[in-house]
Amino acid sequence: MVITVLSGGVGAARLLRALSGSLDPGEITAVVNVGDDLVLHGLTICPDLDTITYTLAGLNNDELGWGLAGESWRVMGELDTLGGESWFQLGDRDLATHLYRSQRLAEGATKTEVTAELCARLGVRIRLLPVTNDVIATEFDTDLGRLSFQEYFVRHHHDVVVASIDVVGADRARATPEVLEALSSATRIVIAPSNPLISIEPILAVPGVREILEQRRNDVVAVSPIVGGQALKGPASRLLAELGHAVSCVGVADYYGAIVGTWIIDEADRHEANDLAARGARVVVTTTVMAEGDNARRLAEAVLA
Amino acid sequence: MVITVLSGGVGAARLLRALSGSLDPGEITAVVNVGDDLVLHGLTICPDLDTITYTLAGLNNDELGWGLAGESWRVMGELDTLGGESWFQLGDRDLATHLYRSQRLAEGATKTEVTAELCARLGVRIRLLPVTNDVIATEFDTDLGRLSFQEYFVRHHHDVVVASIDVVGADRARATPEVLEALSSATRIVIAPSNPLISIEPILAVPGVREILEQRRNDVVAVSPIVGGQALKGPASRLLAELGHAVSCVGVADYYGAIVGTWIIDEADRHEANDLAARGARVVVTTTVMAEGDNARRLAEAVLA
Repeated sequence: MVITVLSGGVGAARLLRALSGSLDPGEITAVVNVGDDLVLHGLTICPDLDTITYTLAGLNNDELGWGLAGESWRVMGELDTLGGESWFQLGDRDLATHLYRSQRLAEGATKTEVTAELCARLGVRIRLLPVTNDVIATEFDTDLGRLSFQEYFVRHHHDVVVASIDVVGADRARATPEVLEALSSATRIVIAPSNPLISIEPILAVPGVREILEQRRNDVVAVSPIVGGQALKGPASRLLAELGHAVSCVGVADYYGAIVGTWIIDEADRHEANDLAARGARVVVTTTVMAEGDNARRLAEAVLA
Repeated sequence: MVITVLSGGVGAARLLRALSGSLDPGEITAVVNVGDDLVLHGLTICPDLDTITYTLAGLNNDELGWGLAGESWRVMGELDTLGGESWFQLGDRDLATHLYRSQRLAEGATKTEVTAELCARLGVRIRLLPVTNDVIATEFDTDLGRLSFQEYFVRHHHDVVVASIDVVGADRARATPEVLEALSSATRIVIAPSNPLISIEPILAVPGVREILEQRRNDVVAVSPIVGGQALKGPASRLLAELGHAVSCVGVADYYGAIVGTWIIDEADRHEANDLAARGARVVVTTTVMAEGDNARRLAEAVLA
């Protein structure tokens, strides 16, 4: 089986890791959100690509929940002394990734090529593909004004009222040929349990992607990011509510529209199964929380069944 | 007395430090070469500005002869692991400077403004002015082909035959208003004992600078970078010879042309005094080697006399 996984950061990284326990990593492709990407201090930073890369390389920092294990903070400490922008924490190890990427991009390499180079160097065998090599940027209209993704997410800890979300540049962005091919040729397309509005939406918003999922709906499996009526982490619950969607599996299904053939939902949301089925989807009920290895394995098996 | 010093890196930094022992630092301005500046890993790096800033802040690394004291190399080590370009060594502390500068430039600040901010933060009271806010780049035609400054200087350890040197972009660059004012209003203009061809030339090549020195020749004092018939450090001797100039104080004087009113030369070159005088300059003979504090103080006094 060859599968392609629409992926945000942490949740997708865990699902990909679980899937690579049941399937040859060479048969797995992740199409990754780049709407969070930013240029800061001259460096091009790709948080979701990096989170997945580090996790699959076994280098992720479990204590922090982001970044690299064994990290140090010398550069940021000095930058703080200089009065520089230090709200977006970049560890010394992590900085090497951004320096590498920024130099390669300046030399004319694409984000797709740089990602492949970093994965090869770190021994990541799952293929990671940024959805586009063009620049797209998820932005928020909030009660503090217009915010970039990381201003919203990191600087303000997503603790701000959101009126609307835009993926700036998505309508003009081109999905890469590798992405279109991976979506068209996969046996199964999986939507990871990432934030629908800010992790999956920027992927769907790139012209061509949603259209393929609509055509291949029967082969699309979505893992619900909602468990027991709320998101496991991050601002998904709040954003769904603020933007007028139900905070439930059904709310996410209605947001995605007619692109999901199979929903995988948690035992705690079993009561939503009939409403999802009424929307034309098959429903699989299992344990979707991946905190424990056994659960992750069970979820991977459900995705691949 | 208000003085303005045309400055390269290490030699100029030592002279500036010596001068600030004899004069209020607030009365000293350095007009600094930016022909060595480069963009690497997405970061804008200004080696001469940084060398002077670090030296005047008392943060320079005497052991290495460049960079910051107490430096560490975590980021470079990781970059090397990733297969990145690590021939241009950037320490963790040093990187913070480049991150700060790159972010401020991206926000629209000029190099002049960023330099002032860094100096203020590090307690440097001498005013440092990049000669221009425009991008200029010293490049070399060599037997290895065309090389950028740092490829020539660092990557190939200036151990390569040079056929010609260009300061690309200098003819279109504009000297900043602060630089023109500092040169016009100074009681005395000093040319530091920096490399004439690659440190001072990129300053003189910016339109307007040489013209002011020609007009103010009587107020221009140059400290010879040649001592005992050779340069104290770096490739000045070799470059002068390869490009057809005499490796002597007279060779440098002929290279500069009619912009120096007073030459300060070392005791070891006393025999050149008559030839220099024949070129219309006054000559002061003293000890120009600044390795010892006493010598530096004597040289500063000669410059200010």
